[in-house]
Amino acid sequence: MEITRNQIKHVKSLHRKKERMEQGLFIVEGRKSVFEALNAGMVPQMLFHYKELTEFQEFRQSQPVSSSEMERITALSNPSEALAVFKIPHPGPVPSKIDEPLLFFLDGIQDPGNLGTIIRIADWYGLHAIVCSNDCVDTYNSKTVQASMGSLFHLQVYRADAEEIALAIKSTHRFICADLEGTNLWDSPTVKQKPVLLAIGSEAHGLKPATLQLAEERITIPGGGRAESLNAAISAGLIASALLR
Amino acid sequence: MEITRNQIKHVKSLHRKKERMEQGLFIVEGRKSVFEALNAGMVPQMLFHYKELTEFQEFRQSQPVSSSEMERITALSNPSEALAVFKIPHPGPVPSKIDEPLLFFLDGIQDPGNLGTIIRIADWYGLHAIVCSNDCVDTYNSKTVQASMGSLFHLQVYRADAEEIALAIKSTHRFICADLEGTNLWDSPTVKQKPVLLAIGSEAHGLKPATLQLAEERITIPGGGRAESLNAAISAGLIASALLR
Repeated sequence: MEITRNQIKHVKSLHRKKERMEQGLFIVEGRKSVFEALNAGMVPQMLFHYKELTEFQEFRQSQPVSSSEMERITALSNPSEALAVFKIPHPGPVPSKIDEPLLFFLDGIQDPGNLGTIIRIADWYGLHAIVCSNDCVDTYNSKTVQASMGSLFHLQVYRADAEEIALAIKSTHRFICADLEGTNLWDSPTVKQKPVLLAIGSEAHGLKPATLQLAEERITIPGGGRAESLNAAISAGLIASALLR
Repeated sequence: MEITRNQIKHVKSLHRKKERMEQGLFIVEGRKSVFEALNAGMVPQMLFHYKELTEFQEFRQSQPVSSSEMERITALSNPSEALAVFKIPHPGPVPSKIDEPLLFFLDGIQDPGNLGTIIRIADWYGLHAIVCSNDCVDTYNSKTVQASMGSLFHLQVYRADAEEIALAIKSTHRFICADLEGTNLWDSPTVKQKPVLLAIGSEAHGLKPATLQLAEERITIPGGGRAESLNAAISAGLIASALLR
């Protein structure tokens, strides 16, 4: 069955945030990412794949397409072998008790690739949740989904502002933030002493004053070179690695 | 003086690798990146900037342009405030003696953003050189230049294959490689014991068999989660941070 004009229109509309929000749907592209989503139990609303990829045939809405059809719906410059549409999950508010050794709080991260990369880092370390401030880039942006390489389907992405998350973790976690001037990372206690909420700001604007004020400690990645800063995903990864060592 | 049709044609041609190679020129975009290049003593062949940016006026070839003119030459979706064209540096062969505590060897890295991010990490840690295998993405790709945030002008990027660099560092450095199965990163000696040459492979293809064979040790970033891997820049950063602690 050929892909219809309406299907093409529908899928392409979901490349825009406004349409994703209104329809509550998002796109996953790439053989591995689609497979991770299906494996995580997500039910596709639409599922297009090259006919050679027999692993997708058993799934609901599975529809083999040609490469020229895929080119008409992809957001990538090299169309992927599989593209699926899923419902956007709604994890609800941040739970009042969070049992995680390390929890990222992303404060206004605007770069979709950085957000996806941080989700992948969290998943690498076996974390089950991250928290994004309400002004972070859309989690279901195609570049975020792409950069997370399927990790998006392994953890919960909550939305909350700094006050809300600070309140939720107050009795259990130490609230620290990554800053250019703070305690040397290697002198800061690891999560074995106390679980950590780690706030990471955007590259352009850093952490919001309200977030900085809520944090108990600022930590810095010692460098010594000439770069003025590191990107948000690298900072998140380096600090996580050291605190979880 | 208005930007000429020939100038537009010339700048736009440099968005393509083939033209960059033939002409030996590359583009730097963004106020900060252009300024870092000028500060590093590079001499612009062309230098376009918004007229408000008086910091650029003193430089050779400085030419104020309007935002609509900038839109005609940029490779970015949001045109930057400054764009300059420089000669591609030729650092020559890898020196026979390299005095660096840590030296990255990037083995077939294809993602331009990852290469730029790794250059920025090296600069953060005050390293003065990195080595790219001959099949790595072009260092002067606009996305690489962009992601390096000016760090490209603070260090030397050598091109060499694994055998050549292994030979150069043989008596001074320990040759280790990042791999999914190896010694736990935290159990590996830091650079204080012996300087390190660290090989990082591409996400899609990993390290080449020849590189793996030359390395003395494989090290792994302990995770424990469900992500199958980390991206090349994150891996490079996490390992560098631990070995330089």
